[in-house]
Amino acid sequence: MSILIRKVQLNGEVRDILVEGSLIKEINADLQMAAEIIIDGSGKAALPSFFNGHTHAAMVLLRGYADDLSLSEWLNNKIWPTEARLTEEDVYWGTRLACLEMIKSGTTFFNDMYWHFHGVARAVEDSGIRAAPSAVFIDLYDKSKAAEQIALNRRLFEESKRYSNRVLFALGPHAIYTVSKESLQWARDFAAENDVFIHLHLSETEKEVEDCIRQHGKRPVEYLHDIGFLGPQVIAAHAIWLEDREIELLEEHDVKLVYNPTSNMKLASGVFPYTKITDREIAAVLGTDGCASNNNLDMLEEMKFAALLQKMNSNNPTVLSAHDVFQLATAAPARVFNINSGSIEEGKVADLILVDLSDINLVPNHQLIPNIVYSGNGGCVDTTICDGKILMQNKRVEGEEEVLERAREVAFALTAS
Amino acid sequence: MSILIRKVQLNGEVRDILVEGSLIKEINADLQMAAEIIIDGSGKAALPSFFNGHTHAAMVLLRGYADDLSLSEWLNNKIWPTEARLTEEDVYWGTRLACLEMIKSGTTFFNDMYWHFHGVARAVEDSGIRAAPSAVFIDLYDKSKAAEQIALNRRLFEESKRYSNRVLFALGPHAIYTVSKESLQWARDFAAENDVFIHLHLSETEKEVEDCIRQHGKRPVEYLHDIGFLGPQVIAAHAIWLEDREIELLEEHDVKLVYNPTSNMKLASGVFPYTKITDREIAAVLGTDGCASNNNLDMLEEMKFAALLQKMNSNNPTVLSAHDVFQLATAAPARVFNINSGSIEEGKVADLILVDLSDINLVPNHQLIPNIVYSGNGGCVDTTICDGKILMQNKRVEGEEEVLERAREVAFALTAS
Repeated sequence: MSILIRKVQLNGEVRDILVEGSLIKEINADLQMAAEIIIDGSGKAALPSFFNGHTHAAMVLLRGYADDLSLSEWLNNKIWPTEARLTEEDVYWGTRLACLEMIKSGTTFFNDMYWHFHGVARAVEDSGIRAAPSAVFIDLYDKSKAAEQIALNRRLFEESKRYSNRVLFALGPHAIYTVSKESLQWARDFAAENDVFIHLHLSETEKEVEDCIRQHGKRPVEYLHDIGFLGPQVIAAHAIWLEDREIELLEEHDVKLVYNPTSNMKLASGVFPYTKITDREIAAVLGTDGCASNNNLDMLEEMKFAALLQKMNSNNPTVLSAHDVFQLATAAPARVFNINSGSIEEGKVADLILVDLSDINLVPNHQLIPNIVYSGNGGCVDTTICDGKILMQNKRVEGEEEVLERAREVAFALTAS
Repeated sequence: MSILIRKVQLNGEVRDILVEGSLIKEINADLQMAAEIIIDGSGKAALPSFFNGHTHAAMVLLRGYADDLSLSEWLNNKIWPTEARLTEEDVYWGTRLACLEMIKSGTTFFNDMYWHFHGVARAVEDSGIRAAPSAVFIDLYDKSKAAEQIALNRRLFEESKRYSNRVLFALGPHAIYTVSKESLQWARDFAAENDVFIHLHLSETEKEVEDCIRQHGKRPVEYLHDIGFLGPQVIAAHAIWLEDREIELLEEHDVKLVYNPTSNMKLASGVFPYTKITDREIAAVLGTDGCASNNNLDMLEEMKFAALLQKMNSNNPTVLSAHDVFQLATAAPARVFNINSGSIEEGKVADLILVDLSDINLVPNHQLIPNIVYSGNGGCVDTTICDGKILMQNKRVEGEEEVLERAREVAFALTAS
């Protein structure tokens, strides 16, 4: 398939963009050529689509179900009992809804950790976007549970080969307080052998650090270092409560970190040490976390929270500019997840969006990136293209009504019982 | 005019709402009656429209023009030189654009402080919403400037009587560091005699407090108390750097406060002491501040920032619930500004919105208020009614294209020079 996007704003200039197959074939001021699909880009700007670095996509089913609660009440009385009832079909429709929301708000990749791996992976396939799904791996330090989980993940890894290259199998050891040392070490070895990512929660709350010190006599990153877990395959979400020595270890092992500002604020977890992280050579990306603690998957909103939280926290309005935070959701995660997109250039994979410059939040348009980061939201996105295929045009996604209807049914059935 | 909204969700039940003239005449399960306009409310929920407690509406012209700068560079090199070139016509179109953005995001009242009073007031009249515009009153401790400003405000007050009751004249003494004691005392007397509000900035930055202590030997609220300025007409924006004794004085004098979380985070000003304020009988409302420091006028986004900032700052996820923050933008400001709306009840003024329950951010809809506060944004609003008149239906505002076009022209001419 070929797509010609005519007369679109790209980096402040009017350009034609030709997409052939999955790639951006040519960018020029005026491409006089035929294409199967022509998109009128006038009044629109082209941008790379967004990467969501950490989420639990199907939790969108629980959006708005349990807010303003303490962490223990939220988890023990609301989230966990409901999640225990989830079927693979529920997760499929929940993830379809999440993918629809992501497509509508310009996101074409998410790094996921959730139950019912195949529910997630099938939804990603059917939605047309990309993801690195991982099954939640929890053994609670129980050897038989660990063996089950290892067997399950070996099987899922093999089975995941049936999916397209838009689905990147990853391991999802939940956190150090739910997964045994031996299982973490197994994950390290399996990831190295099979070249897959390891996605875990790390130092999200102060309590996690205190418990680790009590149990292991050291802080979480030191513990993970000492058991040999750290490495370039590790994608650690939250990474809030870090001392300088731990940040050095993360850099030394090329661990990747995910900043989740909205969730961190909503659950009062703490503040990601952005300036300390970026003073070093540590890759950081941005994520929304799940919808039960955000409560949406809008990466433009997340960018605004990300920048403003760091400005406030460092008492410096120049910290984490709009341009820098935009990179945390585009070029930086493209490098981290090794996907040849994240910017609009010839030869790159066509993962891109068109934003509507007549959107009320984008008028006037003195500078596009600050404008969409600080004033825009997902609703500014008009067209979403992933892997060279149009997933949304004129704000319409094929089949969206069915997804809304099925996801609503699943959500109400889940919480009605 | 009469409007019948049929089968709309209201507080979790399906209702018909009859609007006659400017008032909500009747609410019932099934109103079998004729009306000049029938709105199909199915798939929608009715909510009170929003009040923006502090803004500089026409600054939307400078949205995205100067971000990520230090306060002094932002003001001295970018904002003030540009504002010095503003004409009344510029302010008119800037305010029209701001009103359009507010109507689209469900806001029907704003408390404003800006240059060219009549530019603001005419735009409010023509847009159909409500506002309390005030002319920026700055005398820089200069007696002849003070006399000019006083004469100007006396004249504007008289001239403002030509507008409808949707325009509430207010005084706008900018702040204690830009307005002399004598002018503040004049404002107090004029406000009391003429029953108008006094809108000022108060204790927005730590520097303002330090300068006040250096100049007057006391903190800002103590200074305002000692010169007899404080009273129930005073609406103080920001109110961040307050000691307990100052909070007592604010309560004693029934001063109203405006919390501006997004601007406060973006400019790294500090955190509004919400829990200390609401431990006392002090009225607090929510505002966006101007678009040069926000950068939009979306009160739903502001509610999310408001709640999450307080949760983070107090290390307690139960602080400032979605329901409480919703009140800060509806019922609380309706009381403060003495407008008989802010909730949907028979006999109230019809300032209300319909939100689209099929908006991707509102699916599923376990609880409407948490859903729109934490997941929604202004784009969820389908219909906006102010004073019994439909300003937006099906997301369309009459004449919006002209407003976008004219405001774009003004914005580019302003910043091109």
